[in-house]
Amino acid sequence: MPIIVQKFGGTSVADAEKIRRAAERVIRTVKQGSQVVVVASARGKQTDALIADALELNPNPPMREMDQLLSTGEQQTVSLFAMALEALGQEAISFTGGQIRMVTSSDFTKARIRSIDAGRIHRQLDQGRVVTVAGFQGVDEGENITTLGRGGSDTSAVALAAALGAEECEILTDVDGIHTADPRLFPDAAKLKQISYDEMLELASLGASVMHIRAVGFGKKYDVKIHVRNSATDMEGTIITHEVPQMEGVVVAGATVQKDMAKLSLIGVDNVPGNAAKIFAHLAGAKVIVHDIIQTEVSPQKANLSFMVVISDLAAAKEATEQIKAELNCQDIFVREDVALVSVVGVGMRTHYGVAEKMFTALAKAQVNIDSITTSEIRISCAVDEDEAEKALQAVCVAFELDKPAELRAKV
Amino acid sequence: MPIIVQKFGGTSVADAEKIRRAAERVIRTVKQGSQVVVVASARGKQTDALIADALELNPNPPMREMDQLLSTGEQQTVSLFAMALEALGQEAISFTGGQIRMVTSSDFTKARIRSIDAGRIHRQLDQGRVVTVAGFQGVDEGENITTLGRGGSDTSAVALAAALGAEECEILTDVDGIHTADPRLFPDAAKLKQISYDEMLELASLGASVMHIRAVGFGKKYDVKIHVRNSATDMEGTIITHEVPQMEGVVVAGATVQKDMAKLSLIGVDNVPGNAAKIFAHLAGAKVIVHDIIQTEVSPQKANLSFMVVISDLAAAKEATEQIKAELNCQDIFVREDVALVSVVGVGMRTHYGVAEKMFTALAKAQVNIDSITTSEIRISCAVDEDEAEKALQAVCVAFELDKPAELRAKV
Repeated sequence: MPIIVQKFGGTSVADAEKIRRAAERVIRTVKQGSQVVVVASARGKQTDALIADALELNPNPPMREMDQLLSTGEQQTVSLFAMALEALGQEAISFTGGQIRMVTSSDFTKARIRSIDAGRIHRQLDQGRVVTVAGFQGVDEGENITTLGRGGSDTSAVALAAALGAEECEILTDVDGIHTADPRLFPDAAKLKQISYDEMLELASLGASVMHIRAVGFGKKYDVKIHVRNSATDMEGTIITHEVPQMEGVVVAGATVQKDMAKLSLIGVDNVPGNAAKIFAHLAGAKVIVHDIIQTEVSPQKANLSFMVVISDLAAAKEATEQIKAELNCQDIFVREDVALVSVVGVGMRTHYGVAEKMFTALAKAQVNIDSITTSEIRISCAVDEDEAEKALQAVCVAFELDKPAELRAKV
Repeated sequence: MPIIVQKFGGTSVADAEKIRRAAERVIRTVKQGSQVVVVASARGKQTDALIADALELNPNPPMREMDQLLSTGEQQTVSLFAMALEALGQEAISFTGGQIRMVTSSDFTKARIRSIDAGRIHRQLDQGRVVTVAGFQGVDEGENITTLGRGGSDTSAVALAAALGAEECEILTDVDGIHTADPRLFPDAAKLKQISYDEMLELASLGASVMHIRAVGFGKKYDVKIHVRNSATDMEGTIITHEVPQMEGVVVAGATVQKDMAKLSLIGVDNVPGNAAKIFAHLAGAKVIVHDIIQTEVSPQKANLSFMVVISDLAAAKEATEQIKAELNCQDIFVREDVALVSVVGVGMRTHYGVAEKMFTALAKAQVNIDSITTSEIRISCAVDEDEAEKALQAVCVAFELDKPAELRAKV
């Protein structure tokens, strides 16, 4: 019998009525002939409430104790979910991360999954039960409870689907699927039928928040078919899967805009081997996450080096670069705080010409000035003035016909 | 270094301020030269709230899932407690029942403790940490979470004290200790300095609610010194301990009254071997808890048999006795629903005459009619009219001078 993992986020299990509706959905899936494993998050704002309780007692709580505390939210949801299933006549059993040996590293609050004991779940499924598993949590080798970080329930669900050999991992959420662009910024954005892991990874790292990036990475690694769909309807959502030939025909899967970015430029750095490594090691040491590095040679001896950071990392980034300015023999550091990054993503770019040109033309027509450009194999990003970010995104969406499903767009 | 177990009930950890105050108390005990293990209950009304959440989804929730759910309350308290200790500069670590291998039977919602791994706690204590342990919970052999039933945190604390070889198990609560009688009914009741396990067991089974009866039983079995004291003061409370010679001098340690009792009398039962066993086996099968059995022979062939039950068990008890009335050749069944049980308890009764007489005289002077009398080695109980219960208790308390500490009472 095929196994389906169904992951319900916090809003889909926020109260008794929502848990009951989620349970009804699970039972429909069982009746269609599948074994179902539910992965659930903490109810509604429970995690935030527990964090507030902790901070009231200790502004800097030990991370191990935070995980011990926060893991209770998911444990409550899955036991309540099992009760709801039983009340509807479906046998069910709930498990914590520890009970299914979801063994992780000991990096409290951001642990990484190492292994899962699928056997205990299989035995319950084979007895006709639905298994509800607390997302977001595991245990380390020393039986300490760990958590996987925000959005970790997605990762739990995909990892479980991989361990169980599930046919599909459904991510049930409050949106209809993945869109070509954020519908709040481009209301005509089309829903994607499918998208490749690589495209989804690029979109997620560019701020598309529907799926957690680690979950997508897990899906790619173990080739888990991920189905992002609306928990309130039976409509098909978006399938995230490995690359299939027809994806090549779609030049641009989606477009994103990231606001609240800042750009740092190090002017006239000595162009000697190891200098770039030195600066980014220093930034990593300061826990600054760096985006979109550009280096250009300005003379045989000197180079300019720029990169982007989210605005909340700017102070740390500035301090870190100032600290090694002299060592790099850097002449000056410029900071631009009003930058946004507009990007298009698509595996079809690999085999199609003219994508960059089309994007730049669209921005030019919309009178948007491009500050800098970076590309990967399946992505083109333009830094633009933050005030012009939304206009830029809309221009790009229109140019690439992101209001239409892929099959209805003009052939390139 | 001596080990002290300090158990804090739900009201003593109800909010951040109370947890902080409890943590300060723990640190004072550490500074006095002890290793401290904290056992804590769920905060305030958290357990009740979780039960309500469960019943909203399932009026008859699976017991395993209830335990999975309810155990989160204590887990939250002990991680928050550890954070509070750390904020005050005291290193601390929290454990769930599972993490210290508090292995229990699989009787969900009323599991019994089988073994505890004291090693993990000792290792942490020896590193200078305070260990906070979630009360009320354990795991069975199959890694299912279990709970010990209402008041189970007391049992956890005493069992841990036994396993750790602790010098003392402090039960920190909102009363000053054990009193000779319930101060709400006899305001002059004196606080006891000490009381034997057997006396406390009798008092607890007669409805004195300060200590959980299973915890006292554990204390007796492993000879754990239990100190019931007020969490809000540094005042000494009451020590529950094994019997010491000076206790013999105290004829009556305390008096209780149990209201909401009913008395069933089976009239003219065939007086043949096995009939009494038959009826009480039948009542046990109906899950009726029976108190104070009295059997009297009325002829060589016939006996009358009566017993008491709490009023909530009355319907089940009536049904069960009606079912076997014919088999016992019982002539009639009488039920009295307005009965209360007034009792005095004391190990000194074993060696002193005249206790029963003094009690009956006191009740007679107070114009209280005695319906029936039962005794154990250290207890005398009188069934009285429920309306006269409080008057009866007060009369008994005055007669035995229960308003005075034991050493100030008239010698018998």
